[in-house]
Amino acid sequence: MGILVVGSVALDSVETPFGKVEEALGGSAVYIALAAAYFSAPVRLVAVVGGDFPRKEMKYLEKRNIDLDGLQVVEEGKTFRWGGRYHYDLNMRDTLYTELGAFEKFDPVIPPAYKKSSYICLGNIDPVLQKKVVQSIERPRLVIGDSMNYWIRNKPNELRETLKVMDVIILNDSETRQLTDEPNLIKGAKRIIGMGPRVVIIKKGEHGAVLVTNDVIFSAPAYPLENIQDPTGAGDVFAGGFIGWLAKTDDISVENLKRAVVYGNTMASFSVEKFSVEGLDDLTPLKIQDRFREFMKLTKFDEQ
Amino acid sequence: MGILVVGSVALDSVETPFGKVEEALGGSAVYIALAAAYFSAPVRLVAVVGGDFPRKEMKYLEKRNIDLDGLQVVEEGKTFRWGGRYHYDLNMRDTLYTELGAFEKFDPVIPPAYKKSSYICLGNIDPVLQKKVVQSIERPRLVIGDSMNYWIRNKPNELRETLKVMDVIILNDSETRQLTDEPNLIKGAKRIIGMGPRVVIIKKGEHGAVLVTNDVIFSAPAYPLENIQDPTGAGDVFAGGFIGWLAKTDDISVENLKRAVVYGNTMASFSVEKFSVEGLDDLTPLKIQDRFREFMKLTKFDEQ
Repeated sequence: MGILVVGSVALDSVETPFGKVEEALGGSAVYIALAAAYFSAPVRLVAVVGGDFPRKEMKYLEKRNIDLDGLQVVEEGKTFRWGGRYHYDLNMRDTLYTELGAFEKFDPVIPPAYKKSSYICLGNIDPVLQKKVVQSIERPRLVIGDSMNYWIRNKPNELRETLKVMDVIILNDSETRQLTDEPNLIKGAKRIIGMGPRVVIIKKGEHGAVLVTNDVIFSAPAYPLENIQDPTGAGDVFAGGFIGWLAKTDDISVENLKRAVVYGNTMASFSVEKFSVEGLDDLTPLKIQDRFREFMKLTKFDEQ
Repeated sequence: MGILVVGSVALDSVETPFGKVEEALGGSAVYIALAAAYFSAPVRLVAVVGGDFPRKEMKYLEKRNIDLDGLQVVEEGKTFRWGGRYHYDLNMRDTLYTELGAFEKFDPVIPPAYKKSSYICLGNIDPVLQKKVVQSIERPRLVIGDSMNYWIRNKPNELRETLKVMDVIILNDSETRQLTDEPNLIKGAKRIIGMGPRVVIIKKGEHGAVLVTNDVIFSAPAYPLENIQDPTGAGDVFAGGFIGWLAKTDDISVENLKRAVVYGNTMASFSVEKFSVEGLDDLTPLKIQDRFREFMKLTKFDEQ
């Protein structure tokens, strides 16, 4: 049992029409792990930071039930930093800078105690490293890979190899089109199923997510929030809620995958209401359950 | 009882990555009426064409249970023509030409027999004319107005006046933002409710539609089609299915409005599978019902 997450740990400076933060905790692995830990803790984190990574963030993650034995600290290196600015309607953003620091040479090392992890979530890193991580795990029950536009362009062959060891891939709509050269998303998803994963989840930002298998299509809208502060990390939080629910229930039937998608949307909806990871700060099982039920109401209609 | 539709009747030349048609039957009133007539016929059409409008299209509409007593034929004028080309993923299109012809001076005249119509659907025409139409009807039970990006920019004050006589307004996401200067769609929808309509429906193309009232938000995804040929008219067909179902059941409760949204999506999903109005050609109540049920499956999940 147990969830293992690999990805980035970063310090993000983000500006949206509603405010800004400087060097706030971020990174794919952080967002995934914080969301997943609400369901199934501790969550094992495999990532790298520099010697400049603030001790208070380290403590914060530990307090949040993130197991940091797999977090490499490169004392002479710097932590990954990203700066971005969102447009008016939050659907577009400009990257202002990317300083990879120690993340540039990241080589994930899996501590022996992690090798029995059942649920593996691969954040957006080099597909060669993603594959290496999967191969280090003894008998993973479910491998989920997150989206990777950069790698589709720059390491297409390596990505194809990694897809073969993924059970579930999470992409956004443009990545789906880019990976398959197919404008129709459903056709594209089915083409990706032919490459390895048996489940494709297409994230569509404010429009929600669609789960596609060979037999089933499930469409889950995003929560209609009136106050979105900062969309950073929403896709990773989605992945974290998704894998968290699956690990908690240890049930990977299609019906439970659908619930997991809604839990993913649920967690993402909390995350975007505040800056950085703050939206994941004070949740409770009851709050999560309540919003999950709101999602049920949101799409429910009867035949009369 | 009975549905009255006002809008354009056009000859469209459309090119998509999957083919093209020349001077095919189109226009907002045509799409709305053809979809609505599957639910509640005859549908009364108020529109204008030129003397060049093909007799065969006239006969086609009559055969489809469209009442043409309100169709003005300006013998010396030309029928509205529109040419457009869709991009790779069908989400964007370029208008190649717009020849208004007789539509430029369109002044809707409501035949006496139409004045008792209960369900009024206002296609995308000048808001001054839309208001005039509503005021010609004795006691409309429900007035639905379709989207109007052009008018938001060019006749904002007139549009505000017309909003006051609409019960339901259907807009797309960019029109909602444009009309309200509000990037958040839900906030925008609620602001529009403050302007008159008690129901706002935001169309999101391939992402479906959201219905917003002061108390309820209902989100309905689009049908995940693998083969979309031509999206022209999809929004109008949505409106036609929506008003058609409401007129058929004569029930404007919120629960029935939700069903109507799904019937709107259902009809739109058929329409985009073929060029021009051909996708609405050979439907049956059973085919429509079957796809409605597919929509139920598409979003259904349980709590476990």
